[in-house]
Amino acid sequence: MQYILGIDLGGTNVKAVAFALADGRECFRQTAPTRDGQSVDGVPAWAAAVRSLVAACANQLGGPPARIGLAAPGLAALDERSIAFMPGRLQGLEGWDWTNFLATPAPVPVLNDAGAALLGEVWQGAARGLRDVFMVTLGTGVGGAVLSDGRLLRGKIGRAGHLGHISLDPHGAPDITRIPGSLEDKIGECTVQARSGGRFASTHALVQAYERGDTEAARLWLESVRALGCAIASLVNVCDPEAVVIGGGIAQAGTALFTPLAAVLDEVEWRPAGHRVRIVPAQLGDWAGAYGAAYRAQQTISP
Amino acid sequence: MQYILGIDLGGTNVKAVAFALADGRECFRQTAPTRDGQSVDGVPAWAAAVRSLVAACANQLGGPPARIGLAAPGLAALDERSIAFMPGRLQGLEGWDWTNFLATPAPVPVLNDAGAALLGEVWQGAARGLRDVFMVTLGTGVGGAVLSDGRLLRGKIGRAGHLGHISLDPHGAPDITRIPGSLEDKIGECTVQARSGGRFASTHALVQAYERGDTEAARLWLESVRALGCAIASLVNVCDPEAVVIGGGIAQAGTALFTPLAAVLDEVEWRPAGHRVRIVPAQLGDWAGAYGAAYRAQQTISP
Repeated sequence: MQYILGIDLGGTNVKAVAFALADGRECFRQTAPTRDGQSVDGVPAWAAAVRSLVAACANQLGGPPARIGLAAPGLAALDERSIAFMPGRLQGLEGWDWTNFLATPAPVPVLNDAGAALLGEVWQGAARGLRDVFMVTLGTGVGGAVLSDGRLLRGKIGRAGHLGHISLDPHGAPDITRIPGSLEDKIGECTVQARSGGRFASTHALVQAYERGDTEAARLWLESVRALGCAIASLVNVCDPEAVVIGGGIAQAGTALFTPLAAVLDEVEWRPAGHRVRIVPAQLGDWAGAYGAAYRAQQTISP
Repeated sequence: MQYILGIDLGGTNVKAVAFALADGRECFRQTAPTRDGQSVDGVPAWAAAVRSLVAACANQLGGPPARIGLAAPGLAALDERSIAFMPGRLQGLEGWDWTNFLATPAPVPVLNDAGAALLGEVWQGAARGLRDVFMVTLGTGVGGAVLSDGRLLRGKIGRAGHLGHISLDPHGAPDITRIPGSLEDKIGECTVQARSGGRFASTHALVQAYERGDTEAARLWLESVRALGCAIASLVNVCDPEAVVIGGGIAQAGTALFTPLAAVLDEVEWRPAGHRVRIVPAQLGDWAGAYGAAYRAQQTISP
């Protein structure tokens, strides 16, 4: 059976998903723990986990994949053979050549995880078939990716699409990339304790209190949503998409997020000739990156 | 003689510049007043001005151009035959089909003026040969354009690259596109009187006072430059260019702009693995748009 395999190497799990080339049906799905910092048979545990998932898939489907694509955090090298820059976590990942490591006959395209998630949503999710769309993922941090005229923006060093690292306050505190008052720090899980003076341990708890009618929670949450709305309206003026996909754990707040967000956009979005941008929740959840990696692998066969 | 003709239809003047196809040399340059609101021989004066410049050029160079390109304010239609959206000024420009009006055998590509200016700088100016670069023009308003992997971003309705309309303060006053606390309102000429409580009638006067050591002028000007630096650092994280071109009248402040701007970027720019983005002044001045229009026309012959 001919199939493509998409792998998403995350901080906690490695996900693998395969699709039949004949009809595009999903035919394999499995995860393995990343175990960052450990090693197995002389290689980092994350590399061994990828190799074992490839082997498990080949075993189940009766042969190796036609192509493999891989998504991982960090800046992807422009030759798409590795992650070129990923400080702090997954030591050894920088420059790790997946085509060599997996000994595949065809190159393994390597993508940034947020870019892969957007491709996944464009292929089989919330942004199906769109050519101009960007995605914002709201989680511990805030990530993103931009598709323009059907192409994923990469830029000079693979940094394009870091939508969480835009300033909404030139006098705010610097975020991890040094941007003051960044979108990431205004809505990311990473700052919810600090933003709430220690009252809320998670965005989930904050949003629950907001839904119960807690005044202080409403003030905090709606301030974050306003920052998100202004950031999206700004990025709409930069990228001019037909839709914006919102993903990540915080997007599961549902109407508690999307209703006040729509109100902010009604106020601040530029709508030339009445044109308005659709805001849509992501559909593929945690699997978007693996889907996008598979899609990228498929593109290397038939672009 | 075979030549291409670039036309930039501005609010005050129409500029025309021609280049020989054989060696790329400039062989014609002329301007005519726009006279917005008047009409000539039953057509808007701006249209008549374009037609007369085309005729003057053909007369001087002994025949019609091989191709014409045209830049104008507003959102360009995706078929590149007209400006699709331009409220308020140059009435009649929306939907005006330049290929029909000029009765040219080949289509006249129509571009947004800021996009044309960036193409001009990429062709023969400050960004020569670059494939990932964006431009910010600081004038009455703040405009911009983005080139990514050699392609001008256009987006779904031709709005991409409106870099002046990004928010630096979700609680700021709305700008002309409704974005609160926009870059345009923080450094554009349009707000200098309001920002200075009526003390400075122009950015030029503000910068002169800053250079004389005026404390209040320094506070105001450096606040604007900080906003610009944070906006550029944000857009670097979105677009990941190799250089940023700064154009427009305010860029003529020279070191009074570029020195404090470099200091802001030293503080707030994300520099993965030490990579830093070059900030360069535009080189073609008022003629960048006409150059870019000519370049786009040339591309329709040999992309």
